[in-house]
Amino acid sequence: MELKQIYAPVQEDLNKVKETLKSVSRIDYKWLSEQLRYIVSETGKGMRPAMTLLSGKSFEYNLPYLLPMAVSVELMHTATLVHDDAIDKALTRRGQATINSVWGDEIAILMGDFLFAKAGEFVADTQTPRVIKLFSQTLGIISSGEIGQFRGSFNLKQKREDYFQRIYRKTGSLFSLSTQSGAILGKAPEELVVIMKEYGDNLGIAFQIVDDILDFTSTEESMGKPVGSDLIQGTLTLPAMMVIERNPADNPVTRLFETKDKKNVADAIDIVRNSAIIKECYKIAGEYHDLACRNLKTLPKTASRQALYDLADFVIKQGT
Amino acid sequence: MELKQIYAPVQEDLNKVKETLKSVSRIDYKWLSEQLRYIVSETGKGMRPAMTLLSGKSFEYNLPYLLPMAVSVELMHTATLVHDDAIDKALTRRGQATINSVWGDEIAILMGDFLFAKAGEFVADTQTPRVIKLFSQTLGIISSGEIGQFRGSFNLKQKREDYFQRIYRKTGSLFSLSTQSGAILGKAPEELVVIMKEYGDNLGIAFQIVDDILDFTSTEESMGKPVGSDLIQGTLTLPAMMVIERNPADNPVTRLFETKDKKNVADAIDIVRNSAIIKECYKIAGEYHDLACRNLKTLPKTASRQALYDLADFVIKQGT
Repeated sequence: MELKQIYAPVQEDLNKVKETLKSVSRIDYKWLSEQLRYIVSETGKGMRPAMTLLSGKSFEYNLPYLLPMAVSVELMHTATLVHDDAIDKALTRRGQATINSVWGDEIAILMGDFLFAKAGEFVADTQTPRVIKLFSQTLGIISSGEIGQFRGSFNLKQKREDYFQRIYRKTGSLFSLSTQSGAILGKAPEELVVIMKEYGDNLGIAFQIVDDILDFTSTEESMGKPVGSDLIQGTLTLPAMMVIERNPADNPVTRLFETKDKKNVADAIDIVRNSAIIKECYKIAGEYHDLACRNLKTLPKTASRQALYDLADFVIKQGT
Repeated sequence: MELKQIYAPVQEDLNKVKETLKSVSRIDYKWLSEQLRYIVSETGKGMRPAMTLLSGKSFEYNLPYLLPMAVSVELMHTATLVHDDAIDKALTRRGQATINSVWGDEIAILMGDFLFAKAGEFVADTQTPRVIKLFSQTLGIISSGEIGQFRGSFNLKQKREDYFQRIYRKTGSLFSLSTQSGAILGKAPEELVVIMKEYGDNLGIAFQIVDDILDFTSTEESMGKPVGSDLIQGTLTLPAMMVIERNPADNPVTRLFETKDKKNVADAIDIVRNSAIIKECYKIAGEYHDLACRNLKTLPKTASRQALYDLADFVIKQGT
């Protein structure tokens, strides 16, 4: 199923989210709006705002609050990407040159801050201190998680639990902000708010596992960034851990991390592609998919609930 | 008058602010708390939280909301400094090594983000969407102002109005967030909220003019960072503009900006120190001081109001 079909119950309002994101770039400062137009021109899959709206529409669909919330999660996501790219010295993202590569690290730092500020303005428009606080807590989880990832780069002692902890912080936390805030703003009963949080946490982890698989199995063209980026950054993802686990005595991941000799990247990609590692990783992603969906049945039976099921299926089918 | 005397009406609660700032560093992640302790160990003059409390205490002193607000403005200030230092590649701040110089730019970016997040959590604890929105708007003003400053560096075409606009964004906006939020949380009548905003805007501009004078007239020891830092960064401050205005045909500021030859820095400092420029700059700072204070008399007559007058005097007497 295509995303467009999945988003159908909220497609009209997702268009409003896109329009609002574009309006962020229409500001007085010429030099700023030039860069902002550039950022919001390519907004990716828009999964986070879609999750907010679908979650909200599973309950009371309070659009005047859900709309700024959806804008806010997408802006926060974009801001974190702008900073991550500066940190990683990444050259391309979503198929186009990164802010840092075009305007330099300094502008990337400040542009990220500006986007956090805009995200904060939109979340304030929800007039709901509980989701506003969750918003800031999530940013704290993401940035401390990124600090952990950066400090742990090229560290071979990391265990699987470190990996799952890290991708929860990096991806799961913002997925669950998206779904949980939708439920809160939709005035869902507290037990269903919890279920929407669990859905987001687990689906985010599944999404990140698949994203980490794609870093080995996909193409630069379809990802919009080079294959093997994680390895080059020294980020130990699940497939890379499995390469080490299968060949503890000698393997290209350990060699790469120890010597930083990039010729090992292609060898590591080869091993992953030509082994059962991909299948095993998809299996684990599937387990998080199941955790995400296990309690969705207690939600009111709506087209939006069905879309949440379909979105979960979409996430773990990417690249297959 | 010393700051300690000026802060007297709120000193006890400022201690609580300091304690709370320290508690931010007591978190689970060892690597994070090491760096956070380092940041919050030296919190500067604490003028912004003092302004929030003094402003609030001029009306209804609603401490459970004013306290997190005061913590929040100081954390936002600290976060912007951490990012600014990374952008400027500054080595020292408040007399100690900067985060970027100790742990690198990557950690500085993420640590700033983490501090923004913490600031956002505290402002959410005010439960007051209006100040929460002001908080994010202010961050937007500051970061877009910093983008303007960075893009305008080494640009000799800037006019005085560009300078005043820039320092309003950089410093005035956060001063007025501090004072205005205190008034809002203190349930001040709307016309007095406006007066507290004007106080903050104008006092912030006065403060920044004096800070820009000190960059020429002070010592590294008392500033905690090298003399002439602004010039070296290519930031055209008021004293530097006056050097150009007085010697349009040939002067060390123009030479520095055109050739980036740092030997001109000492010459520019000499000219500023041995001319009426300092006096003229203090005079202009004094005009903003007067604008800040002109309507304070309409506030209820309290010890806090007197402290706001005294704080304004303190600001323009620094370095004299």
